[in-house]
Amino acid sequence: MNGLTMTLSPNKEKHLYEQIYEHIKLEIRKGKLRSGERLPSTRSLAEFLQVSRSTAELAYEQLLSEGYIEARPYRGYFVCPVEELAGLAETGRDGRRNARECRETGKEGTYVCDFSPNTIDMTAFPYATWKKITKNILVGANSDMFTYSCPKGDYALRETITHYLYTSRGVNCSPEQIIIGAGNDYLLMLLEKILGRHVKIGMENPTYKKAYRIFESFAYPILPIAMDDSGMSAEALRQSGAEAAYVMPSRQYPMGIVMPIGRRMELLKWAGEKEGRYLIEDDYDSEFRFKGKPVPSLQASDHLGKVIYIGTFSKSIAPAIRIGYMVLPEPLLEIYEEKCSFYSTTVSGIDQQILNEFIRNGHFERHLNRMRKIYRDKHDFLLSEWKGMEKQFRTLGENAGLHLLFQDKCGRREEELVRKAGAVGVKVYGLSEFCVGQSKSSREGTMVILGYASLSRGQIADGIQRLKQAWGHGI
Amino acid sequence: MNGLTMTLSPNKEKHLYEQIYEHIKLEIRKGKLRSGERLPSTRSLAEFLQVSRSTAELAYEQLLSEGYIEARPYRGYFVCPVEELAGLAETGRDGRRNARECRETGKEGTYVCDFSPNTIDMTAFPYATWKKITKNILVGANSDMFTYSCPKGDYALRETITHYLYTSRGVNCSPEQIIIGAGNDYLLMLLEKILGRHVKIGMENPTYKKAYRIFESFAYPILPIAMDDSGMSAEALRQSGAEAAYVMPSRQYPMGIVMPIGRRMELLKWAGEKEGRYLIEDDYDSEFRFKGKPVPSLQASDHLGKVIYIGTFSKSIAPAIRIGYMVLPEPLLEIYEEKCSFYSTTVSGIDQQILNEFIRNGHFERHLNRMRKIYRDKHDFLLSEWKGMEKQFRTLGENAGLHLLFQDKCGRREEELVRKAGAVGVKVYGLSEFCVGQSKSSREGTMVILGYASLSRGQIADGIQRLKQAWGHGI
Repeated sequence: MNGLTMTLSPNKEKHLYEQIYEHIKLEIRKGKLRSGERLPSTRSLAEFLQVSRSTAELAYEQLLSEGYIEARPYRGYFVCPVEELAGLAETGRDGRRNARECRETGKEGTYVCDFSPNTIDMTAFPYATWKKITKNILVGANSDMFTYSCPKGDYALRETITHYLYTSRGVNCSPEQIIIGAGNDYLLMLLEKILGRHVKIGMENPTYKKAYRIFESFAYPILPIAMDDSGMSAEALRQSGAEAAYVMPSRQYPMGIVMPIGRRMELLKWAGEKEGRYLIEDDYDSEFRFKGKPVPSLQASDHLGKVIYIGTFSKSIAPAIRIGYMVLPEPLLEIYEEKCSFYSTTVSGIDQQILNEFIRNGHFERHLNRMRKIYRDKHDFLLSEWKGMEKQFRTLGENAGLHLLFQDKCGRREEELVRKAGAVGVKVYGLSEFCVGQSKSSREGTMVILGYASLSRGQIADGIQRLKQAWGHGI
Repeated sequence: MNGLTMTLSPNKEKHLYEQIYEHIKLEIRKGKLRSGERLPSTRSLAEFLQVSRSTAELAYEQLLSEGYIEARPYRGYFVCPVEELAGLAETGRDGRRNARECRETGKEGTYVCDFSPNTIDMTAFPYATWKKITKNILVGANSDMFTYSCPKGDYALRETITHYLYTSRGVNCSPEQIIIGAGNDYLLMLLEKILGRHVKIGMENPTYKKAYRIFESFAYPILPIAMDDSGMSAEALRQSGAEAAYVMPSRQYPMGIVMPIGRRMELLKWAGEKEGRYLIEDDYDSEFRFKGKPVPSLQASDHLGKVIYIGTFSKSIAPAIRIGYMVLPEPLLEIYEEKCSFYSTTVSGIDQQILNEFIRNGHFERHLNRMRKIYRDKHDFLLSEWKGMEKQFRTLGENAGLHLLFQDKCGRREEELVRKAGAVGVKVYGLSEFCVGQSKSSREGTMVILGYASLSRGQIADGIQRLKQAWGHGI
């Protein structure tokens, strides 16, 4: 067992599975375990190292989730090609390390477990299917395919998205209303060109901080709007003097509030009261609702052409593919055609065809179903590991998607919780990081957020165990 | 010879090669000639139809250039997979036709020959190589690859571009200064966020109209700056009150002027005189210079950090891949890091890796060399077909890249020339379409532009023949 002979120290600092994981990772990075090499089964590794089988499983799960190894059905575990990593590390110009420095949440390494709410699980992605579709598309590669693309995106893909949005989210639109763009950041930049300057924009508070930064970079005056249990207050919105509002009605981020139909109608009424008022609906990850009935989009209830609907495949497929879409209501579509239709598309024509095939052939739906199960399992696992802490903490956001919120019943502030978690190597996120504007509600500063999407069961178990040590009163 | 039995009418309205081309195209679109089917050699087709071999060759060349058929070395001509086309046409929902309607220069069909200066030749693109690289990249597909991407673009690709720009264009920069984005339109949008609002921008006149429209959409005050034989006048720029200038010093579009070093130094001096002054260098297609020595970029002479260098792979590789790059000087890099680095990258991480391999393995350079030869041949062929017209027309822009300019020596205006060309089915472009601002120079309105990049020799010969009929005095 080349490269798998290791000395394990059964100390408390580092779990056995972690030691195994780190050893194998290092061997792969050094190139001692080569790309394509088969690893022993978890059973024989466990025997060889004299550890429990679940310890070996946890180690492999972690390596899988970080892309160092891959599982091939009926064949076992194999080392993924990461030779570049090894080579680059040696020359001191580690492209990937540099790329990592660029990440927004690049603080890994200092934490044993990072409960970031901004990640997704890519281990179950159907890579083989994606490869096959890509290959098939490229078989027919010709100059037409590599040359022209419509500024709004390929018509065929826009038809597919129209159908998908209608059936899964109740969105009513024609392919002509859809603009495909390289991610939501870009689509918001394009929207700025359509809406114009100095638009006073209302935002839920707390909210998705990236959108806040983007509006800030437009120099849009941002008006934080209070929320109650139904989401953004229509009354507060009216009084704010906002001209547009950025809302996440199907699942508010990060609070997880699902806006009831009554509040939706109030918001639509507000928008209808004055020309030029719009609601920007960010339907960022409603695919992953796994409790209760699916909630249709706000756009589905809009009969006045007041909702700008924005969605992305970053969370439901992969962040790397950089494809999102925006559905413009008729009045804004006219402005787009007049003022912005000369902007070239930002998405590769080939990638658009690959995505189109992926959706049309049912792979997208299958992938979503699989991911829903995986995320629900992690969600339930986290809560089961959490058992015993309910007396001290209130659990919120059971509808919040890929994270949960916890509030200390004795009123400990988030700073304390975040600090104590950090001391045991666990990164959690205070709610105030998501708050905007001056006025802080009483709720702020008392909650922490734990995302789990990209964590393995082993990591979740370990992280929660550490948090129990750090936060538990009884220990 | 299934599907190749056709009735040819030797009339003047339509050349024989065109009739053959249209017949085969229709058979492919109808699905009667199937994907992968082998076509007869030009020799046997010529014998079968009793036409000259060059007529058969012209027909195939046209089908090749439109991607209906492909040539496989030593094996012959084969039908490309275009079944979707046939199927969609029958159901009346022709995605591609719709996509075509979206094209900016979508007026094909009404013209027999379109001398558009905005096209490129994709027939010689190394599709097989691109497919192979894509396949190899996807073999190692893992979650890391599909998950994270640096906002500026993959570090490895930025290193590759740094090296390429240094060796081929003399650009001095580090990978940290490079921002990869989904096309130049997007990069200019990002630049707006860096430079800020209301930047008074000087532009060469005539200029690249798309950039003009983009700056207009930013509400930047645009100041058209006069040009002399050395390009943008530094004196006129100084007097205009511009804060930034958009220039194409290596080959001005559409005039083809190469800015001499003296004028470059004057422009750099202007920029150095005041803080916040910048030169935006659009080095859009200098790869395809095929006369005279290569000219280094303006950025190569900049020691004060005053040049923003922008380039694209749309013309040198393929428009569909949507990858461009911007090199920021240090002062603007700081602003980017502070104000814009949260914007996610707009280019797929996988596509960045494919492009990186394509360049690193030398395929890009080989492709450029091949294309240079192809374009030079077309350029020379157009001029040889033009023979006999030199007495009536002055030829300009021999350095203009993928187009030529013609000026009537008797002073006929472009309107007349464009109209008369249109009457014989040929689309040519008047220089005034590229002019901006109110003040029109005397030169405007007397020149027409003929692009040839995507035209086959047959099309060029036919188009010029028609122009001779339309414009020639003697006929």
